[in-house]
Amino acid sequence: MAPFETKVRISYADTDQMGFMHHSGYLRYYESARWELFRHAGMPYPDIEREGLLLPVIAVAIRYLKPARFDQMVLIHTTLRSFSGARIIFDYRMAAETGEVLNEAQIKLGCIRKGNGKACALPEHLIRLLQEIMKSQER
Amino acid sequence: MAPFETKVRISYADTDQMGFMHHSGYLRYYESARWELFRHAGMPYPDIEREGLLLPVIAVAIRYLKPARFDQMVLIHTTLRSFSGARIIFDYRMAAETGEVLNEAQIKLGCIRKGNGKACALPEHLIRLLQEIMKSQER
Amino acid sequence: MAPFETKVRISYADTDQMGFMHHSGYLRYYESARWELFRHAGMPYPDIEREGLLLPVIAVAIRYLKPARFDQMVLIHTTLRSFSGARIIFDYRMAAETGEVLNEAQIKLGCIRKGNGKACALPEHLIRLLQEIMKSQER
Amino acid sequence: MAPFETKVRISYADTDQMGFMHHSGYLRYYESARWELFRHAGMPYPDIEREGLLLPVIAVAIRYLKPARFDQMVLIHTTLRSFSGARIIFDYRMAAETGEVLNEAQIKLGCIRKGNGKACALPEHLIRLLQEIMKSQER
Repeated sequence: MAPFETKVRISYADTDQMGFMHHSGYLRYYESARWELFRHAGMPYPDIEREGLLLPVIAVAIRYLKPARFDQMVLIHTTLRSFSGARIIFDYRMAAETGEVLNEAQIKLGCIRKGNGKACALPEHLIRLLQEIMKSQER
Repeated sequence: MAPFETKVRISYADTDQMGFMHHSGYLRYYESARWELFRHAGMPYPDIEREGLLLPVIAVAIRYLKPARFDQMVLIHTTLRSFSGARIIFDYRMAAETGEVLNEAQIKLGCIRKGNGKACALPEHLIRLLQEIMKSQER
Repeated sequence: MAPFETKVRISYADTDQMGFMHHSGYLRYYESARWELFRHAGMPYPDIEREGLLLPVIAVAIRYLKPARFDQMVLIHTTLRSFSGARIIFDYRMAAETGEVLNEAQIKLGCIRKGNGKACALPEHLIRLLQEIMKSQER
Repeated sequence: MAPFETKVRISYADTDQMGFMHHSGYLRYYESARWELFRHAGMPYPDIEREGLLLPVIAVAIRYLKPARFDQMVLIHTTLRSFSGARIIFDYRMAAETGEVLNEAQIKLGCIRKGNGKACALPEHLIRLLQEIMKSQER
């Protein structure tokens, strides 16, 4: 079971006066990791919007275990957990380079039409992409 | 049962290219509502940090029901749900002026010492403040 | 000479680990002040986008005199300095409640068509609005 | 004359409803490029803060020539222009991979003591670092 891994450095602008990353910042890093996974799997997210679909976040659950700090290199593990109908669910883990887990999250996406904002079943080619990602995770 | 209500306008900078508020933005608005409640109850958050305590967010769960849009006036209902030891839990609801619920969240805070980052029981005067808030909600 | 004044509280999320507002944050507050002025003058910015125009920022100059801090109430003075062709220039001043000036900026907007991104002369009714704002400033 | 080059992808969270990067976002990318240059030259910025110094931004001038878009890879050229007393000035250019210039900026930093916020002459070892950067740019 191998989740998709990205490595990134925490920006100064994402800190707050507590001295660590603001709690809203993790969502930005997870979002970038998600579209990195899509690009890696062969479908950059802009292509999806170009077809007239949007994949907005519809639910989020985050546990902040240890603070991420400015200049820290973090590893983000993105796992496609499941999908069906107009829903895609991802599990996330952010860890320090030492392996220490800093943060865990589950993020649920919906699929809607750009024009009318209505929910819309995931199209065939997106389902195939998600199936590919699932398979590659099992390796 | 009366939750604390704040009213605020969604900023342009909080939108993304989907045309509504970015999913990380809600946390910013809920945070401001939280410290507004503390100020209203008689203890501005800066006073707490001045004493050497921090109240970082340690868990978040959000449901995005309808998108909030630029320039929209939204009502935020902040409810202190519970507290004990080194934990405080708030429930949030963001609604349009029509009453339509846009977003719901639960946000859990920890209490740590600024110096060493260690968990620390809520101090007496903070407990009294939270009890006051609880009482005022029951009215 | 009376610039348009808005009053706002600095958010926690806008601070960074230096302990004051991140230098990018001022642009967010100035932007909100700008659309507040437009709404006050009778033309909410969403109406402009609805007509197919965008007013993107095309140049910015900022001087950071004193840091703005979390929870501080600040006064923002927005002055329409000039406009012509496809350009609008605003002067800004952010001050503490004591009157101490914290920040000064000049922000230049362009006018472009949403469809093709091409520069576009300010339409008649926008020119009239800007003339009205100019007049109200002279009072 | 070789400025320091970093390459980075524009995040979704940095877009706004115009469909390109929000005008405040460029400052975030330039800041990361600046500390990347410092790290490359041998002095990660956290080391500077650890010594009790801060290098806040004290002036900014930006020209937005073409919009940067989500998912676009951009090249950032950071040039140390000059330094003296308690001031450091950087020139920036952000370009598309095609070479097309998107954005230009000049950003001035001050040097202050963390404890009292007072201006403070750049310390010897920071001057030596800046001299090294100057030399490497001339190659």
